[in-house]
Amino acid sequence: MKDQQGWKAAKQELAFVDKLTEEENQFLEDNVAEVSYRKGFNIYSMDCDCPGVLLIKSGWVRVYMLSRDGREITLYRMGPGEVCVISAACCLGGMTFEAHIDAETDMEAWLIPSSAYRRLKEQNIYVENFTYEKTVEKFRDVMWVMEQILFMSLEERIAIFLMDETERRESRELKVTQEQIARYIGSAREAVSRVLKEFQKDGIIEQSRGTLRVLDMKKLRGKI
Amino acid sequence: MKDQQGWKAAKQELAFVDKLTEEENQFLEDNVAEVSYRKGFNIYSMDCDCPGVLLIKSGWVRVYMLSRDGREITLYRMGPGEVCVISAACCLGGMTFEAHIDAETDMEAWLIPSSAYRRLKEQNIYVENFTYEKTVEKFRDVMWVMEQILFMSLEERIAIFLMDETERRESRELKVTQEQIARYIGSAREAVSRVLKEFQKDGIIEQSRGTLRVLDMKKLRGKI
Repeated sequence: MKDQQGWKAAKQELAFVDKLTEEENQFLEDNVAEVSYRKGFNIYSMDCDCPGVLLIKSGWVRVYMLSRDGREITLYRMGPGEVCVISAACCLGGMTFEAHIDAETDMEAWLIPSSAYRRLKEQNIYVENFTYEKTVEKFRDVMWVMEQILFMSLEERIAIFLMDETERRESRELKVTQEQIARYIGSAREAVSRVLKEFQKDGIIEQSRGTLRVLDMKKLRGKI
Repeated sequence: MKDQQGWKAAKQELAFVDKLTEEENQFLEDNVAEVSYRKGFNIYSMDCDCPGVLLIKSGWVRVYMLSRDGREITLYRMGPGEVCVISAACCLGGMTFEAHIDAETDMEAWLIPSSAYRRLKEQNIYVENFTYEKTVEKFRDVMWVMEQILFMSLEERIAIFLMDETERRESRELKVTQEQIARYIGSAREAVSRVLKEFQKDGIIEQSRGTLRVLDMKKLRGKI
């Protein structure tokens, strides 16, 4: 049984909904599904089918690039209320993104399957437009990541990561390992470890088994 | 006096033209201008007004990122027959790209000024859609550059650059300095110099004052 209340709210994120014909709207209603993924589940890789457009109800997805030798760079994350269109890359018309999507936490979402989404997109210019708009929004995030990697020191990048995380999690206590930080920013664990040790010495953070606490937000900001 | 023949051909690149009303079409005709830029001219930077949408008649533009300390990374180039929408970033709705555009050679283009383009885009969903589509196309190029920088060795990146250039210029003789190559791929001149010396030793290229000639295309390809 569909959670009608939740779907009604989620649907508002789809800017094209008001532009659908009655028939198209019914088709959407008939095809949307509720899905849940376990933490760590690989939702999309270039070499497998894409599930479709995801409207996230709870939890987070992480979109990242993967090198031939297994290194990762996190491009962006998406959370509750956000619409992930890259997960329907197969509908984006010749667009193949060198990107992967994992469930970063246990998560629930509304799913418009690729085949259904493609049909709506082909019939209705507003759906196509919405898809492009959402993609271009993410372009900005990717450019920002690129700028950090190209032009900023490791110290600056780690400081930005820690600030973003405390804000996103609304807590100064982060459950994150050095290994994870290295993966997020596409660096080596040893290098991350070195910078974090300096931050600790300066009284900016405090580290203990799998937890990192930001002690001095102002000093952290000063690193950027 | 407008080069009507040239404009008629160029206009075909604007997929939305058939979807304009008579009034909108007239408005476009009245507003399009012919421009020419000298080699090296800065067409767009984030801190100045953007000229509008460019339909390139002849010559090339280069789109790049610039760091605080003046290092550059070339994201992509566009040439004859291509439509550059980033040069109208101010019309793209909240999109600010950390990008700069230079005329890489002397060049001529049709220009739809920003204010005119914005009006068309606000009136006609097909113009908006075209704008997004062109932007998303470039997203792919940027991802490809990013992949190269993040995951490939300097040797691989220089090999890719040389292959792209011989193809683009349809010549194995490239008028390009080590300094320019370094700027294109966002590396240091010394590092580029070292790799080119190795390529020369392996009989892949030959260098002389400001010119680089590819001798062995197969070996060059083997570097990737």
